[in-house]
Amino acid sequence: MTSAHAPRSAVIGLGSMGLGMALTMARKGLSVTGFDINPDAVAKLTQGGGTGCNNITEAATGCDIVVAVVVNAAQTDAVLFGEGGAAMAMARGGVIISSATMAPEDARRFAEKAKGLGLHYLDAPISGGAAKAASGELTIMASGTAEAFAGARPVLDVIAGTVYELGCAAGIGASFKMVNQLLAGVHIAAACEAMAFAKRLGLDLDQVYKVITASAGNSWMFENRVPHILEGDYSPRSAVNIFTKDLGIVGDMGRRETFPLPLSAAALQMFMMTAAAGMGRDDDASVARMFAMIAGLDLPERRKE
Amino acid sequence: MTSAHAPRSAVIGLGSMGLGMALTMARKGLSVTGFDINPDAVAKLTQGGGTGCNNITEAATGCDIVVAVVVNAAQTDAVLFGEGGAAMAMARGGVIISSATMAPEDARRFAEKAKGLGLHYLDAPISGGAAKAASGELTIMASGTAEAFAGARPVLDVIAGTVYELGCAAGIGASFKMVNQLLAGVHIAAACEAMAFAKRLGLDLDQVYKVITASAGNSWMFENRVPHILEGDYSPRSAVNIFTKDLGIVGDMGRRETFPLPLSAAALQMFMMTAAAGMGRDDDASVARMFAMIAGLDLPERRKE
Repeated sequence: MTSAHAPRSAVIGLGSMGLGMALTMARKGLSVTGFDINPDAVAKLTQGGGTGCNNITEAATGCDIVVAVVVNAAQTDAVLFGEGGAAMAMARGGVIISSATMAPEDARRFAEKAKGLGLHYLDAPISGGAAKAASGELTIMASGTAEAFAGARPVLDVIAGTVYELGCAAGIGASFKMVNQLLAGVHIAAACEAMAFAKRLGLDLDQVYKVITASAGNSWMFENRVPHILEGDYSPRSAVNIFTKDLGIVGDMGRRETFPLPLSAAALQMFMMTAAAGMGRDDDASVARMFAMIAGLDLPERRKE
Repeated sequence: MTSAHAPRSAVIGLGSMGLGMALTMARKGLSVTGFDINPDAVAKLTQGGGTGCNNITEAATGCDIVVAVVVNAAQTDAVLFGEGGAAMAMARGGVIISSATMAPEDARRFAEKAKGLGLHYLDAPISGGAAKAASGELTIMASGTAEAFAGARPVLDVIAGTVYELGCAAGIGASFKMVNQLLAGVHIAAACEAMAFAKRLGLDLDQVYKVITASAGNSWMFENRVPHILEGDYSPRSAVNIFTKDLGIVGDMGRRETFPLPLSAAALQMFMMTAAAGMGRDDDASVARMFAMIAGLDLPERRKE
């Protein structure tokens, strides 16, 4: 990436994370195109100073940097390497920034495919949520070759508050993200188990939140998700289905490594129970509502507007 | 507690928590006696300005406030209400501050016994560790009658940084503590599961600590206990056996309430496996060593002095 021209970039996948990243890139002066199957998201990118496109090829053609921000490995494979995928359209020598959460072996496989096409690949899962995507303060757990990092730098510089450089091969970034998701999923399920149990014990839940967040039982997820329970607001900030997916990947990795993961396995089943009860698209704090349903608890309900 | 004389207080149980509390009380000018089955601890109290005694009766006779800081409900029952126990020796109208971790029904039972003897009872489990006990900055999760709080106040004022007043009946403080222990135990086990898995995946464990403590997967316990794994130092700051006990109480409570607690149950089994492997008296981060033993991982070892 020593080309003299200003880099051209594209974002494939304009969900809340991808759109936030693309708008940040446009706002900070990068040339950015984008595509999503949702035309509203494409229109929003154009309104925000980027160029919304009608398909992936149109968005990626001639780009030096393509950011793939889709749901999983299968979608990443399709949008990059499938028919009409971005890898065939972008500039040779360019770099793919791949941000979907996936197993490390998928990241390694995609890096090989990219190499075969004369492209660089940065394994770059993200953390921080939609608000940090919109403000350009994402945390990125990245690994890849020096060329991949160098090529990705103009985009990393504008979208990230912190870039962890975790190693020189694809798969390492993905591994870090999965370790984080293991803990995040267990902590959400534990927060819900604890709050539902506190309700059964007759405790004042607002007081429980106040005491626990000041005690050794606290977690980032307890502090962040329990307010949803206290407000009875299960509109999805992050959905139950994200954790059936991510703890599913963790479980697959454990089996592949012949490594026991008893807490992650128990937490996955709790998210599965919640999804099976019809709450898969609701906020992940709905695990508390699953306990309430089973045990007949009266958790707080959202005030009617 | 409107007696004109300065209150006389006693601490029964001079382990790291009780001794720290008693020395703080002496340092801040309270009259304090104390007893423990360990004569070294008794001697330390005398050296620190308190009065070490030869038995519970001697320590408690005439006291207005008796703090019981022993390991569990059975020991609390024995030191307060057993033969030669403190409740029979202390001043009528006095208050018992009971700080061992126990099931709420035990706290309610002890409050009834105290009432029958003309005493007040403050259900007052503590959090914060030995350092905060020594500095007078404990967190206390307290419940009891207004009389119990009023009578306990001279001691609470000097030993605690924060006193949560959680309700007017014994058992509420104990319930809060058990909800905290549920979360603390699950989070320690999760931290160990995640770090052992990270090792299996070939990740740099120092880097994992750095990334996770800055990410949504963080917990108070991850941040506090993982350094023990990184340093290979399993000298007990808090032992595995504390959590086989406390998660055992949580499980008992769940069965009594007919309430499912899948994560706590899984975490208890992980501490049980670690204790069964001979590490019950070691630091609770030893759950990571249990994984290492099973899966043949090379976790960091303590540098030989």
